[in-house]
Amino acid sequence: MKKLMNSPADFVDEMLEGLTAANPSLVRGGETGRVIRRADDSRNKGKVGVVSGGGSGHLPLFTGYVGKGLLDACSIGNVFEGPTVGSCIEAIQMADGGKGVLRLYGNYGGDRMNFDMAGEMLEDEIRTTTVLGTDDIASAGPEERKKRRGVAGIIYAYKTAGAFAETGADLDAVTAVAQKTVDRTRTIGVALSPCQVPGSDKPSFILAENEIEMGMGIHGEPGIWRDTLRSADAIADEMIDRLLNDRPEGAGNRASILVNSLGATPLEELFILYRRARARVQAEGIEVVQPLVGHYATSMEMAGASISLLFLDDEIGPLLASPCECPFWTVR
Amino acid sequence: MKKLMNSPADFVDEMLEGLTAANPSLVRGGETGRVIRRADDSRNKGKVGVVSGGGSGHLPLFTGYVGKGLLDACSIGNVFEGPTVGSCIEAIQMADGGKGVLRLYGNYGGDRMNFDMAGEMLEDEIRTTTVLGTDDIASAGPEERKKRRGVAGIIYAYKTAGAFAETGADLDAVTAVAQKTVDRTRTIGVALSPCQVPGSDKPSFILAENEIEMGMGIHGEPGIWRDTLRSADAIADEMIDRLLNDRPEGAGNRASILVNSLGATPLEELFILYRRARARVQAEGIEVVQPLVGHYATSMEMAGASISLLFLDDEIGPLLASPCECPFWTVR
Repeated sequence: MKKLMNSPADFVDEMLEGLTAANPSLVRGGETGRVIRRADDSRNKGKVGVVSGGGSGHLPLFTGYVGKGLLDACSIGNVFEGPTVGSCIEAIQMADGGKGVLRLYGNYGGDRMNFDMAGEMLEDEIRTTTVLGTDDIASAGPEERKKRRGVAGIIYAYKTAGAFAETGADLDAVTAVAQKTVDRTRTIGVALSPCQVPGSDKPSFILAENEIEMGMGIHGEPGIWRDTLRSADAIADEMIDRLLNDRPEGAGNRASILVNSLGATPLEELFILYRRARARVQAEGIEVVQPLVGHYATSMEMAGASISLLFLDDEIGPLLASPCECPFWTVR
Repeated sequence: MKKLMNSPADFVDEMLEGLTAANPSLVRGGETGRVIRRADDSRNKGKVGVVSGGGSGHLPLFTGYVGKGLLDACSIGNVFEGPTVGSCIEAIQMADGGKGVLRLYGNYGGDRMNFDMAGEMLEDEIRTTTVLGTDDIASAGPEERKKRRGVAGIIYAYKTAGAFAETGADLDAVTAVAQKTVDRTRTIGVALSPCQVPGSDKPSFILAENEIEMGMGIHGEPGIWRDTLRSADAIADEMIDRLLNDRPEGAGNRASILVNSLGATPLEELFILYRRARARVQAEGIEVVQPLVGHYATSMEMAGASISLLFLDDEIGPLLASPCECPFWTVR
């Protein structure tokens, strides 16, 4: 699998160098060099900080969502590896405005361990809380929802928690909004072809020429089934069926749909999927608001897509609609 | 090559259905159903209209750039095929606000023939002018610049012509700005892997496992050389060298850089390329302003990237910086 890169060892740092050079609203900081913070320096604003972090290889996730009304800072690991404790500490410190910091990241063992340790090491200095993204319905059953992995749907929690923090809400309230958003978000992905970690000599998994995998994770974690490619409508139908069957209590009748490319899948195919997903959700009597279709959480050059639903209520609906600004997601 | 689609015959119409459903600022119209216009209906504004068009398979190009300060309407053909005369006529009519319409599209035979015919058929009704995108330096030498193909760099002309039209400038002035922008834009692409037209049983070209092609066009048109993959810096260096060697007279010392994914190439790799491209351009004493890094003009799932330079002057610099709004490019 061909990549436009130099030494694999420099992949992440060179990527961050380019990302920040192209986007002056993002500033790279910390002794580790593995933290991105807002250029407008939210530390001085006396608001709750919202921090995320995760492995590289998922742009715009995670660092791309640093900006007003979203994240204040983000720690970043090597490709498909969690961020170090040091970078998590630095990210929390950079996001701290004296009102505490929400740690909001995907449910992966390495990320949890390092963010937990960072929180403990800072506990005399900065009050922190934790909300884990657990939106991937393919990764565990509904009775084990807390064990699910976090995937693309976490951006909805960035949005609502970030918007609420901007209003001056306190840490417990911001944390509750993030948790409620995660609780009301459901995602499932489908992979068509693999990706390859820079420096590795083989792809992270193999799919046969006409094979797809339903429910695969964003690092190639096993999904629900592997079988032959079928029509976009059949795939969208199964994904929407699974999402709706898993809908949260009190889901209500308004939802946002996120149709996300895992990397190589082009916009054309995403719009074909979205067209069907929207029709199916509407047919359930659910109003579709603020759809997102594009590259929001990728696995480098993996082909495939994920569909997420966020079931809105009167609290998180307005927070989703309120202004935010980062290089990859702007709401006015 | 696996695609998320239904019948290949429905690929374009289903894509347009999803595109417009997800983006209410874009309205699909005309008897052909192959025109996208601004929802805010620029026909009533008494300004010069700016129209483009081209084959499908390049999103966000061409239809994605319909919006305030950019295109007023766009005709769209089948995948990698020019738009029909009928859709070109409809697009021109929809963009007409009584001050004439600029036809601004890439230099391809089919597109030229149909846009020319549409202009002739409307000549008693609507005054039109033509500017052709000719930014691909790999497709003909500097002495035959008018024969070059139009690729990603055409979006710069959308931006400046669209911005100038919004100021109330007349058709000749808008046309001159578009032509000047094309004259000051240079692009070169590199392909790492092919794409495949929906319904076709084979990719549009074949590259060996470790082979790349410098200068390949966005439909797989032959490039300058085909050889083994090299480092991102070596590739960026060659692309920037070629662009700078071809720089227009009076290029000046300010430029925008566009690093564009041809489809499958992820953001991480684009930022690695951008980092080097920017350093090389700066080393020439050229200030880099308003960089663009992302998916701006694709060839479906083709892997690879293009780099464009727009050399600014005191007229087009402010037009590039002025506000615009479409689903894929917002300037405030």
